[in-house]
Amino acid sequence: MTKNAIGIDLGGTYTKLALVDSKGKIKHRSRLSTTDYDSRDSLLEAIACEIRALIQKAGLTPGNIEGIGIGVPGLVDFNRGLVYGLTNVRGWKNTPLKLLLERKLKIPVLVDNDVNIMALGECKFGAGRGARNAVCITLGTGVGGGIIIDGSLYRGATFSAGEVGHMPLKEDGLACNCGGYGCLERYVGNRHIASEMKSAIRAGRAPGVKAMVKGDLSSVTPEIVSKAARKGDKAAIALWEKIGGRIGTTLSGIVNLLNPEMIIIGGGVADAGEPLFRPVRRTVKRRSMRIPGRAVKILKAKLGNDAGMIGAAALFF
Amino acid sequence: MTKNAIGIDLGGTYTKLALVDSKGKIKHRSRLSTTDYDSRDSLLEAIACEIRALIQKAGLTPGNIEGIGIGVPGLVDFNRGLVYGLTNVRGWKNTPLKLLLERKLKIPVLVDNDVNIMALGECKFGAGRGARNAVCITLGTGVGGGIIIDGSLYRGATFSAGEVGHMPLKEDGLACNCGGYGCLERYVGNRHIASEMKSAIRAGRAPGVKAMVKGDLSSVTPEIVSKAARKGDKAAIALWEKIGGRIGTTLSGIVNLLNPEMIIIGGGVADAGEPLFRPVRRTVKRRSMRIPGRAVKILKAKLGNDAGMIGAAALFF
Repeated sequence: MTKNAIGIDLGGTYTKLALVDSKGKIKHRSRLSTTDYDSRDSLLEAIACEIRALIQKAGLTPGNIEGIGIGVPGLVDFNRGLVYGLTNVRGWKNTPLKLLLERKLKIPVLVDNDVNIMALGECKFGAGRGARNAVCITLGTGVGGGIIIDGSLYRGATFSAGEVGHMPLKEDGLACNCGGYGCLERYVGNRHIASEMKSAIRAGRAPGVKAMVKGDLSSVTPEIVSKAARKGDKAAIALWEKIGGRIGTTLSGIVNLLNPEMIIIGGGVADAGEPLFRPVRRTVKRRSMRIPGRAVKILKAKLGNDAGMIGAAALFF
Repeated sequence: MTKNAIGIDLGGTYTKLALVDSKGKIKHRSRLSTTDYDSRDSLLEAIACEIRALIQKAGLTPGNIEGIGIGVPGLVDFNRGLVYGLTNVRGWKNTPLKLLLERKLKIPVLVDNDVNIMALGECKFGAGRGARNAVCITLGTGVGGGIIIDGSLYRGATFSAGEVGHMPLKEDGLACNCGGYGCLERYVGNRHIASEMKSAIRAGRAPGVKAMVKGDLSSVTPEIVSKAARKGDKAAIALWEKIGGRIGTTLSGIVNLLNPEMIIIGGGVADAGEPLFRPVRRTVKRRSMRIPGRAVKILKAKLGNDAGMIGAAALFF
């Protein structure tokens, strides 16, 4: 018999909610504009209302719901369901989110970091369906990751495991927001991709991309680079080669360390597709050891914007 | 009630055997010279004899023994107890070691890679006693590692997890035996340490170490460098700073990725002690993220040459 849970993806812009069944299928969904709420408590009350509405819409009662899973953009104490703070959402410092929602709804609540949740969703119901050991990375402004071991999320000693973006790519290197230096994120994050393309345009090496943005360097983004690469633009393809080589270098270390069945790559930058995935795969093959290098599959994430909701619900399946 | 198991550390020079109790204490031990046996089967027969003798010496019967654990220097299929091949021991290609010994002795047998076994021993009964999540690395000719997750060895999809020595230290870099390049091992393995010191001597930058080896560069080893550093030799201390910084760089990536409670460092090179551990700890603190960087303890392995036997027996506890 299929079971049901609520999955919530709390983001800086939208808070997305869904009633998800134990096959990973979204049965009902809704969405709040996170920025519409001027306090944490008013947002929480709105979330509780939406949850009740979803359960009713499905013709169920709170007793039929396994639980409510929530992914948030920040550091979390998973055991206590405590949010230490959120990126881009104010007023959430040290919020006992599990406790507050359980009090309102009398349904079990689990809270985790959004990248962990996405990794769980992709491994249970997305590109990694059935994988026992997998690493999931997200490429965007930041570079995050989640680790699945023996079919469950691995969270580490203080719930901060999975920071693939802050593994050193370079022995020396540029200072990173995290306080370290030479981190992968510093060389493959959104801003860095845009800035490398801008430099190429300024140096006259990317006339095609320059034409696409009508000379307006401020509108150069990874999406533009992807679009240009799809059209066959040489400078754009060369940039993805470089970015993919860097990601592949760090991933080859992860392959040798963790010997995962698969690595799933998601996030906006992953939409670059083959121009990015080709150099990633080639570099992993070239740098990693024979046996783990052959064993690992490198796949694009499948669930897109639904990964957060599906993964959050999957905490209960 | 304490239980008992046999732990065996099969090495290229010696095969060490012990009867170990479930508190990690060695009660009886013996040793064979691996090279005395001209075939795999004669070595296996000798091992079986030694096991019977150990059990008798302890006043036990095969029925009182939980099992026989064996660590071997090579790649193993843990589930099947199959040895794919051994480094420095001939004639072991595709040996069904578990099957062969179980037939001889009618006691359950488990076979694993020697670095995994050492990691398990250190985590259960050595420096990491009680750790749930830990990484153990060994520094020597090669640089190996074992990963403990939730109190058990994590082996990966094809039993090859833990290859810390083959995580890339440099984005580009020297070719490595593994087929990759820029690997940590290539910059901190025994041979590299000796060769950097030899270069320093040739360049006239290490007169103290040169005097210690009486000008004979061929006798420069990591042990000599350790000895010189303990005496306060500046060139030796500077070399350990460099080596420690490199190890710390790779470990900071592991700290951010796995958020382990502790990292245990063993193997001959670890005997360099504080001149090596200081820069390792400093680099990890400087490069890794605040929360996992504060949480992790970096410790020296404690069990020394007994780690293999104790860890192998620990497969049954």
